[in-house]
Amino acid sequence: MDKRVIRQRLRMLRTAMREMGLDYYLVPTADFHNSEYVSEYFKIREYLSGFTGSNGTLVISQEEAGLWTDGRYFVQAERELEDTGIRLYRMQEEGVPDIVTYLRQHMWEGQSLGFDGRVVSADFGKRLEEALSEKKIRICFERDIADMVWQNRPPFPCSRAEVVPPRLCGESVSEKLARVREKMKEKKASCLFLSKLDDLMWLFNLRGNDVTCNPVVMCYGFITEREAWIFLQSGALQRETISCMQEAGVQIRDYWVLIPFLQDYFLAGNRGVLLYDSRNINYTMYRIFRSYGRCKESVNPAEQLKAVKTEKELEFIRKVYLKDSIAVTKFIYWVKRAVKEQVGLTEYSAARYLGELRRAIPEFLDASFPTICAYMENAAMMHYEAVENSCSMLEADGMLLVDSGGQYLGGTTDVTRTIVLGDISGEMKEHFTAVTAGMLRLASARFLYGCTGRNLDILARGPLWDMDMDYKCGTGHGVGYMLSVHEGPQNIRWKYVEDMPEAVLEEGMLVTDEPGVYLEGKYGIRTENVLEVVKGMKNENGQFMRFCHLTWVPIDLDAILPDRLAEKEREALNWYHREVRERISPYLTKEEQDWLAEVTREV
Amino acid sequence: MDKRVIRQRLRMLRTAMREMGLDYYLVPTADFHNSEYVSEYFKIREYLSGFTGSNGTLVISQEEAGLWTDGRYFVQAERELEDTGIRLYRMQEEGVPDIVTYLRQHMWEGQSLGFDGRVVSADFGKRLEEALSEKKIRICFERDIADMVWQNRPPFPCSRAEVVPPRLCGESVSEKLARVREKMKEKKASCLFLSKLDDLMWLFNLRGNDVTCNPVVMCYGFITEREAWIFLQSGALQRETISCMQEAGVQIRDYWVLIPFLQDYFLAGNRGVLLYDSRNINYTMYRIFRSYGRCKESVNPAEQLKAVKTEKELEFIRKVYLKDSIAVTKFIYWVKRAVKEQVGLTEYSAARYLGELRRAIPEFLDASFPTICAYMENAAMMHYEAVENSCSMLEADGMLLVDSGGQYLGGTTDVTRTIVLGDISGEMKEHFTAVTAGMLRLASARFLYGCTGRNLDILARGPLWDMDMDYKCGTGHGVGYMLSVHEGPQNIRWKYVEDMPEAVLEEGMLVTDEPGVYLEGKYGIRTENVLEVVKGMKNENGQFMRFCHLTWVPIDLDAILPDRLAEKEREALNWYHREVRERISPYLTKEEQDWLAEVTREV
Repeated sequence: MDKRVIRQRLRMLRTAMREMGLDYYLVPTADFHNSEYVSEYFKIREYLSGFTGSNGTLVISQEEAGLWTDGRYFVQAERELEDTGIRLYRMQEEGVPDIVTYLRQHMWEGQSLGFDGRVVSADFGKRLEEALSEKKIRICFERDIADMVWQNRPPFPCSRAEVVPPRLCGESVSEKLARVREKMKEKKASCLFLSKLDDLMWLFNLRGNDVTCNPVVMCYGFITEREAWIFLQSGALQRETISCMQEAGVQIRDYWVLIPFLQDYFLAGNRGVLLYDSRNINYTMYRIFRSYGRCKESVNPAEQLKAVKTEKELEFIRKVYLKDSIAVTKFIYWVKRAVKEQVGLTEYSAARYLGELRRAIPEFLDASFPTICAYMENAAMMHYEAVENSCSMLEADGMLLVDSGGQYLGGTTDVTRTIVLGDISGEMKEHFTAVTAGMLRLASARFLYGCTGRNLDILARGPLWDMDMDYKCGTGHGVGYMLSVHEGPQNIRWKYVEDMPEAVLEEGMLVTDEPGVYLEGKYGIRTENVLEVVKGMKNENGQFMRFCHLTWVPIDLDAILPDRLAEKEREALNWYHREVRERISPYLTKEEQDWLAEVTREV
Repeated sequence: MDKRVIRQRLRMLRTAMREMGLDYYLVPTADFHNSEYVSEYFKIREYLSGFTGSNGTLVISQEEAGLWTDGRYFVQAERELEDTGIRLYRMQEEGVPDIVTYLRQHMWEGQSLGFDGRVVSADFGKRLEEALSEKKIRICFERDIADMVWQNRPPFPCSRAEVVPPRLCGESVSEKLARVREKMKEKKASCLFLSKLDDLMWLFNLRGNDVTCNPVVMCYGFITEREAWIFLQSGALQRETISCMQEAGVQIRDYWVLIPFLQDYFLAGNRGVLLYDSRNINYTMYRIFRSYGRCKESVNPAEQLKAVKTEKELEFIRKVYLKDSIAVTKFIYWVKRAVKEQVGLTEYSAARYLGELRRAIPEFLDASFPTICAYMENAAMMHYEAVENSCSMLEADGMLLVDSGGQYLGGTTDVTRTIVLGDISGEMKEHFTAVTAGMLRLASARFLYGCTGRNLDILARGPLWDMDMDYKCGTGHGVGYMLSVHEGPQNIRWKYVEDMPEAVLEEGMLVTDEPGVYLEGKYGIRTENVLEVVKGMKNENGQFMRFCHLTWVPIDLDAILPDRLAEKEREALNWYHREVRERISPYLTKEEQDWLAEVTREV
């Protein structure tokens, strides 16, 4: 990218800001729905700054331009921002102000700050309001000014809204609406606004392709006690979508009429309590609701209902996880050999090979997130993504961490294995063994109904804490059904945050179990299985709960020190490997079968 | 107790109620300070009903009288209430309404409910208000009507307020006041009201004898940014108390002028924010503060500061725990022999022997709670207290659970051991082994700073959960320094309660570690050590924390199945027993030493 182009774009933006009377303009990386990934249309921060990382916020004034990004992107951002006049702010580094602090320090009394309120979360918007109110800063959130300077902007994403085939549906739209309305009643709300796309896809049994890795279409939902509306772009509509919505009594409105629709609705004298989830709505919606008044912020009931998979969904999920596990097992067999036999194998080409194995599965649709195929020190970066022309060569030495997953007709997968490619040190083995012990301890947990992830996290993390080590992230997250690979409300984390609601682990929830070791500049280890929450015995003490594995991929014994495992952990590992062998072997070639028998041997 | 006397007392109360225009009158079991135990003066419910249990609430109308108590007391209450006309309401039993529901159902619109607001907690009073507001019930909380009918009421407790000898003080009153005021500032409060007696004793370095097992005097405290008042009965004052308070700039007012003092203070135009802890104040105080208006309910800062022991306090505590452990170890040696050699040994006489061993320690002051000395099925009741003329004989068979502690100059102790007296079943051994494994697992925990009890509970409870068993209480509580044996804010529990604040485990906190098995009608097992929270390594992952044992009493190997212990647990048990031997042996007789060596052998 020619840096003069970037400077020219910034000049145009500054001209537009002057015309609009804005002193500062803020461009985050988000879509209107707070999605985890954004489509091309929303990559305006990249267009304006030339920085291509997945996380970053640009702040521009007539005098200055700054870009905030996190540790994953410091090196890349430095290179990409060179000669653009944009200063890099390294988030979380000592002495670096965050955006809110920066604005509070730099803006003068009475100045104005602009941003497109639709791509700023309600929570961040509220923080800006609070921080800037003392200086009487005017916040202008109504206009997407950057749009005025973006020539040849990619079209707004508009894939077709596909109806989920009834055979794959856990429940009909009417059934789901009835359950959502029950929850609304419990919360004494008469209407519910939904904007998180995976919640909407779940509720309306639709899927699409508007967001990378997330099979969703752009839409909103508005549910009352008797009526329901979905707001879709006309280009997304198919005859099937229309008839399916009609059947469920859902009225279709155009995606772009949402705001006038709501204003009309409120003006029409509907004075019930409106429920919305402030974690998921954008600032513009928040401002509309705030002016309406009778609102209740609450955890979105659709999120909780979506997280508990139906038995029908679980049947598909179990089958899909088996197929996905076969592909990953075949990949491990291949890569351990290929690294010794082939020349020029890279992180990128290995990831591509795994992608091909998945694509050969008939139900496969897409990756569920960008594959992390990270060799040695690259694996110490939790969200590393190998790029074709700048990634590491694989050698018959050390370890390769592969974290990947697929979107299938019948489920969304997520699995990580760290694969030994050659010699590794005793320290690596110690760490690998501790990570695996933690994964197995959590997976083997027996616990009373009522536990949340905070009760259980120490099982996975304990073996590392015993060594004065830790990983700086949660142990697990929920997983969608043909939807986002990261979903709530359940998770496995330990940190106490006051007033943060916790989700009880319910039968039918999925959760990942992924402890790890990340040593900067050295290596990274992670072993990740997806677990299903199931009921155990019920007796006078209450309802006991436990987990079942959904993932069946061998754990590399080349990195296991059996002496370091407690007897129960060794038993759990041997049991798991017996199950992997029995479940996966039938789908392998003779050579692969022999290999699998060896790598799942008893230790 | 002659039941006619009770009926006569109720008649007098009903007459008084009619005179006061009250339709219902409620008599709980509490003092003005929400203390765990109450002195004779406050046993008005016992006076009126004849029921002598430690927990119960009496509700009287002209037509009916009902007593609510919990499962510990059903049998006793039935006997004691017979022929009194008072109906027993078994709390938590199916189909039995709680008091609030009972009143809502029975009271008519516009009737009045009376109680002494000083012995009803603010939270319970608020619940009554809410539940009865629909029926426009008048709540009269200003008068202690029962007092009018109690002839020869015992005097209001009034022991002398003793100044804690400076050599035993962790900090001076001025230092503590300064820290409390810092916390007030953080919470933007300009005054703080304190009524929980142990918090007040801690803050003012006083002790007394007004509440059973709790070395406290009746008092209140009121702290502003510059001034501090303590409200004490004149009979509690000694010259030393007065000069000590003067030194710290604390003004003394009479205990009984608190309410007019506060009214004057608020009327005098002091309009700052008042901080109080709604969990600890009575309903009368709550009503006064509510009428004042500018209040903030918050966790009491003194509670948090008190929980973190100073290094000086910890030095005394460690010494006191060693002496207490010696007494308990000698007791175990004695009881295991006595049960075979002596005739007529009972739970009561065994408890008395243990009491004598403690009393022989020069620093001993009092028991820190009523000793639980419970044989076999009695031990399945968590709060069993053996009474001289109605308790079990000890036989050379089964198990004896002894949970006891002392108040010492230099600390408050709490320890439980379950002692094998003869043959026990394989099942008992399995359960004992699981309980001990859980106690050791928690005690051996390594965890990052920031953990609360909810993160760790599963370590102690896990071995039981793995067997589909549980105990229906928390795993641990904080312990005072020459104060209440139960104190907060820290604890070890697993249950998630929305909006319930959790306390991070801080260096210098004490916490009990007491998993158990309770099989109704069969037996009870508990192993309880007190742990001190200490710092471990600090590195790039954060500050690691761990526990140190304070309790050094052998765990009965006669009930341990070594094969059922994981290797780490066996190592922990052997390490613990080696430490017990080294620390305790020097204080034992030759016979006791030989015995100790045997019962702390490696397994």
